[in-house]
Amino acid sequence: MTQQEQWFPGHLRDLDPDECRSLLAASRVGRVAYCEEDGPVVLPVNHIVEDGDVLFATSPHSALARRFRSGPAAFEVDDFDPYNQTGWSVLVRGTARLVEYGELPDRRPSPWVAGTRNFVVRITPDTITGRRLLPA
Amino acid sequence: MTQQEQWFPGHLRDLDPDECRSLLAASRVGRVAYCEEDGPVVLPVNHIVEDGDVLFATSPHSALARRFRSGPAAFEVDDFDPYNQTGWSVLVRGTARLVEYGELPDRRPSPWVAGTRNFVVRITPDTITGRRLLPA
Repeated sequence: MTQQEQWFPGHLRDLDPDECRSLLAASRVGRVAYCEEDGPVVLPVNHIVEDGDVLFATSPHSALARRFRSGPAAFEVDDFDPYNQTGWSVLVRGTARLVEYGELPDRRPSPWVAGTRNFVVRITPDTITGRRLLPA
Repeated sequence: MTQQEQWFPGHLRDLDPDECRSLLAASRVGRVAYCEEDGPVVLPVNHIVEDGDVLFATSPHSALARRFRSGPAAFEVDDFDPYNQTGWSVLVRGTARLVEYGELPDRRPSPWVAGTRNFVVRITPDTITGRRLLPA
């Protein structure tokens, strides 16, 4: 254990699913992860939550779109306070698929990045878990 | 394109490797990702950079340690400003392996989480890439 840990002995608490969903929906940026042949890739995107699913939009020419395959994916949101050494994180594990044009919901992700971002991906959660790091 | 994008047409710029390494080393929290049989997992940890490698420490009883396998891994750091809708992210893709006791460097990761966190993982980068989202 380091000196720093002795001064700030934080501990982790599991978040209940409702709290996880609430934090996920309130976040403006999350990180989508998927597995490629040579290992995982993690990239930040702007998302929304719709019917419990995570939706994000990217350009059809982006690295994320070019490499996209339907299948297992993860989505992570978090927030940390370096001063107090506290924070929380939520992890969605589920299945990603491309949203067809006819299936687009009225409310759509609105990415901060400019351009035509009409490649919309929906991640349907299998599990949603989270943890909060509390001060001692 | 949404109304919001018309007002805030940000654009992405690739970061050069030196800038990526500098941002990675300056970050206090990053997200490690690895691939399991049923898909990717992404979890935040406190890290340090040593000899260009990313090091983090966890408890041998943690989910991260229990599920750890040497092999492909990714490590992501980012920072965003929701007000200005700007930010940056850096992605390390490489190989993770457990650090044996005798190989532990003098400078060690000091997690915010309390407890004996002597399961130290080293990720050696194969590639390091990053992007900055600039205001228009």
